[in-house]
Amino acid sequence: MKAEIIAVGSELLTPDRVDTNSLFLTEELNKLGIEVVRKSIVGDNRDTLSAAFKEAMERVELIIASGGLGPTEDDLTRETVADLLGRKLHLNHEILRYIEGRFRQLGREMPAVNVRQAMVPEGAEVLENPRGSAPGLWIEDAGHFIALLPGPPRELKPMYQERVLPRLLRRSSKVRMFHRELRVAGLGESGVEQRIRPIYTRYTDVNTTILAAPGEIQIHLRMWTDDAAHAQKTLDEIAQGFEIALADRIFSQDGSSMEEVVASLLTRNNSTISAAESCTGGLLAQRLTSIAGSSSYFLGGVVSYSNELKTAWADVPAELIQTKGAVSSEVAIALAEGIRRQVGSTLGVGITGIAGPGGGSEEKPVGTVHIALSHAGGVKERGVVFPGDREAIRWHASQLALDLVRIHFLYNGGEPPSRIAKRA
Amino acid sequence: MKAEIIAVGSELLTPDRVDTNSLFLTEELNKLGIEVVRKSIVGDNRDTLSAAFKEAMERVELIIASGGLGPTEDDLTRETVADLLGRKLHLNHEILRYIEGRFRQLGREMPAVNVRQAMVPEGAEVLENPRGSAPGLWIEDAGHFIALLPGPPRELKPMYQERVLPRLLRRSSKVRMFHRELRVAGLGESGVEQRIRPIYTRYTDVNTTILAAPGEIQIHLRMWTDDAAHAQKTLDEIAQGFEIALADRIFSQDGSSMEEVVASLLTRNNSTISAAESCTGGLLAQRLTSIAGSSSYFLGGVVSYSNELKTAWADVPAELIQTKGAVSSEVAIALAEGIRRQVGSTLGVGITGIAGPGGGSEEKPVGTVHIALSHAGGVKERGVVFPGDREAIRWHASQLALDLVRIHFLYNGGEPPSRIAKRA
Repeated sequence: MKAEIIAVGSELLTPDRVDTNSLFLTEELNKLGIEVVRKSIVGDNRDTLSAAFKEAMERVELIIASGGLGPTEDDLTRETVADLLGRKLHLNHEILRYIEGRFRQLGREMPAVNVRQAMVPEGAEVLENPRGSAPGLWIEDAGHFIALLPGPPRELKPMYQERVLPRLLRRSSKVRMFHRELRVAGLGESGVEQRIRPIYTRYTDVNTTILAAPGEIQIHLRMWTDDAAHAQKTLDEIAQGFEIALADRIFSQDGSSMEEVVASLLTRNNSTISAAESCTGGLLAQRLTSIAGSSSYFLGGVVSYSNELKTAWADVPAELIQTKGAVSSEVAIALAEGIRRQVGSTLGVGITGIAGPGGGSEEKPVGTVHIALSHAGGVKERGVVFPGDREAIRWHASQLALDLVRIHFLYNGGEPPSRIAKRA
Repeated sequence: MKAEIIAVGSELLTPDRVDTNSLFLTEELNKLGIEVVRKSIVGDNRDTLSAAFKEAMERVELIIASGGLGPTEDDLTRETVADLLGRKLHLNHEILRYIEGRFRQLGREMPAVNVRQAMVPEGAEVLENPRGSAPGLWIEDAGHFIALLPGPPRELKPMYQERVLPRLLRRSSKVRMFHRELRVAGLGESGVEQRIRPIYTRYTDVNTTILAAPGEIQIHLRMWTDDAAHAQKTLDEIAQGFEIALADRIFSQDGSSMEEVVASLLTRNNSTISAAESCTGGLLAQRLTSIAGSSSYFLGGVVSYSNELKTAWADVPAELIQTKGAVSSEVAIALAEGIRRQVGSTLGVGITGIAGPGGGSEEKPVGTVHIALSHAGGVKERGVVFPGDREAIRWHASQLALDLVRIHFLYNGGEPPSRIAKRA
């Protein structure tokens, strides 16, 4: 079964509000093997609202709409759908009594406008709403299922779970969606595409999406089938193919973030880490400590923007800064080694660079970053020129620093990154 | 003129991603008096994509699409629109050379797939993209204007401003939208609503929206008119009313962020700052250094997670930690004074707290945070219990720390916060 979601409300066509009900609904529908093929957001306008339902009915079996069931003049979903389907609206006395009761409980009389909420299209089933005054509606029409739900998430979510889900379960097939997400660092979108294309194109029953996110590429595999074992086997096979094609560039096979992967490696290897940052300004420390329980592996870090503090906090010799420049591989190494010694951690990271927009030169343009990782066996250093603006450069630098830690555990002893339990 | 926005990408039909480009585009179009009457979100599927464009062309003059211009097989916007309009695609050698050049700069060869991005429909105008490889396209067809923009916001936004806006300005009416955004810290949504409601309800021609964002409340005022002077006068009047009602809780009248406001205060007062953070783990330093030119006011900071490093880097007496606990007003004050002394900055901030999910106790529950600001005239301390999860607690703590700096300049001498030039 395929579905479309229609969000109704002029406030959703302003710059301030985004429809989030559809994320919840999509997740729920996907679990039942129902694919959402389109989402529409329309204002409180009879014509565009009607067009949205009409078009959706031409394409899909299931339509779920949110919003526009309120008591005021601009709440048009009920009337518009009844009109479109050629069904009359009748006053439902039971609903009316319920709404009147709600107002009585609040010590108020029901305003006359609320009568609208008790109007039900011929043949529609009423979806009770214990959390608000607007009931939902379920309509079956010529092979279509239409659910009209209230807009507030705290009313919509339980109504879906309690009233819509049971109806869908009776009708949905046994097909379910199986999903796998892999994340890749250190390669661009087209680089990833080129390497994995020969693999995924062999699987015509699997949908592969490649997404660029800051500092990483995400690969989503989605498969729709009623055979769970077959799905797991197929997705495993593809993931193994990708592992060969992308080698150590895959950092996550379960959608976990780079900081989560690094946190788990540090924990499982009983290692601690410290950081001396310049251009990233605390971003690396902030990412390392964003994970619950980070105090077990992160002892501390310094943000040494000034040269004096590089010397005071991370023992970087002042002459080194003078001769090589604050942005140099030598200073990155000194920062990493100095902070590791100062803190007494297993690993030490040093980052120095030019995040811009000012401060660049011909020799060291904006985006130049040196990152070093100091460990018991020595030190590793990488110099890069990142593209993009200040925010992008800082993010990329923190991502590469985390990736160096990950790669360290991959090759310099330590337990290899786990095959984290794969999500279906 | 009316517009529809089409967001393209199967990832936008998953539970993981929400289209945010349309918020930016709506705001920009509204400024020109162009109303957005519908938004559609479609996957990387030729049929639904084609239907979305076809339907939109039946309703509106202007269609802006984002996404689907990448180099891979599932990027279909270019081809689909060309097909729908019956226009052939031709290879544009200039674009091809540009894309090849971008890859060369990164030291890589252009993958063959990227040739797709140099294909241009007959009669289309190319919208240059200095921030990415996918150029945008502007097509005029039988009274319709169609803009195809890349999906990444950092490419889409400047392309709109530099390439689409000038084209729309030539064609739009004289009605403009005038917008003012005020930001408020230290008050909740209903608290703000209660104080400003008597003011904004007097202005029936101004649309007022109150939005809760992490650590702040945003108030949007919007007015549609062809009389710019009247709009400015009305919005000034309302903003002045809000200033009386909300007093020093308004930190921004031009939509600038808390870190931008604090950066500007530090710069104009020739002040420097340092930070000793525990539970925020570098978030405060990261926010202070996210602003271009931050090296003029931010000298350095430490993330002293362990007690030993609180002593080593910020001179916090070990006995104090032992007697009062690491999370206490005394330790926050010692961190602030210690880091200020160590760094020699005008101001010093100390933060210590329990971000959770573990580590809470009955006496000091998760969310307990102490923040201190040390300055030449003394020290100020605030103890709070923030609600929410780890991320929310850390964010709120960094926001309150920045707000303490702002309030310091407001009352402890220093130049008062500027009336920053107001945006129309």
